[in-house]
Amino acid sequence: MTIEHQIKTAIRDVADFPKEGVVFKDITPLLADPHLSDAIGEALLEKVQAMQPDAIVAIESRGFLYGFMLANKLRIPFIPVRKKGKLPGETLEYTYDLEYGSATVEIHAGDIQPGWKVLVHDDLLATGGTAQAAAELIQMQGAHVVGFAFVVELSFLHGVKKIKPYSNTIVSLATY
Amino acid sequence: MTIEHQIKTAIRDVADFPKEGVVFKDITPLLADPHLSDAIGEALLEKVQAMQPDAIVAIESRGFLYGFMLANKLRIPFIPVRKKGKLPGETLEYTYDLEYGSATVEIHAGDIQPGWKVLVHDDLLATGGTAQAAAELIQMQGAHVVGFAFVVELSFLHGVKKIKPYSNTIVSLATY
Repeated sequence: MTIEHQIKTAIRDVADFPKEGVVFKDITPLLADPHLSDAIGEALLEKVQAMQPDAIVAIESRGFLYGFMLANKLRIPFIPVRKKGKLPGETLEYTYDLEYGSATVEIHAGDIQPGWKVLVHDDLLATGGTAQAAAELIQMQGAHVVGFAFVVELSFLHGVKKIKPYSNTIVSLATY
Repeated sequence: MTIEHQIKTAIRDVADFPKEGVVFKDITPLLADPHLSDAIGEALLEKVQAMQPDAIVAIESRGFLYGFMLANKLRIPFIPVRKKGKLPGETLEYTYDLEYGSATVEIHAGDIQPGWKVLVHDDLLATGGTAQAAAELIQMQGAHVVGFAFVVELSFLHGVKKIKPYSNTIVSLATY
């Protein structure tokens, strides 16, 4: 069974979450299966190691899971992007539009060195707003995005269009 | 250098966060050091494996980091406790008091089997409110808390007092 098939078999569809008419892809069954989780980590590793990233930037909260695993497999720094107000000390912030209203995310100033090749990770690529925000935070520090890696991609939401200007290298293990 | 010394050397003190007069222990430098992170994972593993937990319950968001690492090292299921409204599908919830107001956390119903021995993990033990809430959510499902594992403990906040009724086995790698 391919890793994509294994992921899709494990993912649970939850109807009408977070709102009516949306079918939510629940990844928590992946987390409950340590053998599958390790296979996911290895599959991500295989797809990204040729990029030779200097660091992984991962997005709160679910991006912390496989993102930290992957950073440790690659033996590179893990740098969190968090919702505004969560990171202590000096930060850079970026605000982006949501369907209704906006959201602001932050990164620690100085965690990323200018010139670094940074890999962006989240568990799931939907509309791409948060991944784009992470890419902007990376570029603001004089580094560049070497690629994006997701476990799941909802291709019908066209997130790829939003993040392609930052890097053409976009990896997803399972695409709907 | 002991793991405790390594952790304390890496942690960054941030004054007046999240509010005036508080010195915040920022663990993000640990995440940026993959060798130290692996040593932390191994040190936690060594301290908890004799408990033979059936699963790890970890608390959003920073608990997801070493918690997921540890679950994968132990090859046991990882089960997230999240802020209210984040988990899709059927959940159990528990509300606890904060200094001002209250907070509600949730766990998926059915993730934990009755009779399981569950290890609770968070990055940092402060007042113990969230760790206690996680323990309550575990007991509500007929399972029991075999222990608690933290990377950092702020002993002057007496969190141990709050969680000791659930398990006497409380592990912290670095204590202030």
